[in-house]
Amino acid sequence: MLEKIDHIGIAVRNLEEATKFYESMGAKPYHYEEVESQKVKVAFVKVGESNIELLEPTSPESPIAKYLEKKGEGIHHIAYSVANVSAALQKLKDDGASLINQEPMDGAHGKKVAFVHPKSVNGVLTELCMDGDCGCHH
Amino acid sequence: MLEKIDHIGIAVRNLEEATKFYESMGAKPYHYEEVESQKVKVAFVKVGESNIELLEPTSPESPIAKYLEKKGEGIHHIAYSVANVSAALQKLKDDGASLINQEPMDGAHGKKVAFVHPKSVNGVLTELCMDGDCGCHH
Repeated sequence: MLEKIDHIGIAVRNLEEATKFYESMGAKPYHYEEVESQKVKVAFVKVGESNIELLEPTSPESPIAKYLEKKGEGIHHIAYSVANVSAALQKLKDDGASLINQEPMDGAHGKKVAFVHPKSVNGVLTELCMDGDCGCHH
Repeated sequence: MLEKIDHIGIAVRNLEEATKFYESMGAKPYHYEEVESQKVKVAFVKVGESNIELLEPTSPESPIAKYLEKKGEGIHHIAYSVANVSAALQKLKDDGASLINQEPMDGAHGKKVAFVHPKSVNGVLTELCMDGDCGCHH
């Protein structure tokens, strides 16, 4: 059911600083965006079939600001592409996993997304999103 | 230069518990291995062009045991495939990045690998390895 790593979300203090490593490695961000609902600015870097999403908070109320305060810069979540988010959630429920979202939420572009609790995934906040361009932050 | 995400290394307390999420999602580990030098048991899960490497320490002296003690379960490192590790390290040096390995080390299968310091990569311990099957733990 896991088709690919769609993206890895990384909490950073400063996008301009954060993009340096990727730019050194020839991976210039191909898109920048501000996501009002999450109070973040995002830079997207393409690596193979996956994306690195660098997330800088635009307000102290952003979930990413809280993450930075508690843990510092680092990986915030991994998102996997699945063909059917509802079916994946049902399977995880049946297998006793802890879900943050019991039902898929609407992401941008009408895509469906849902989060699985880190305690069911080796301490990693895990997002499932529809196969293809997840558009979770788009 | 970054060809793809080769693997994501995740520190876990117990491989059997840790594989449950991936198995629920139809991604059964395709290989298990013990790596004496790192004092870890590893389960490999394939997701698209990338791998998830679940790392369980076999001794309290394992770097992964120390990581678990300090931070708990979670992502330990990301490894990117590059065509030429030496050239990538030189470029990063020229651009002022902090390297853990100044020169490529031999991984298994004669592959070359090197680590970049988290402070130069948004708090993420980052491995560069030769394109193809990195074999870092193989």
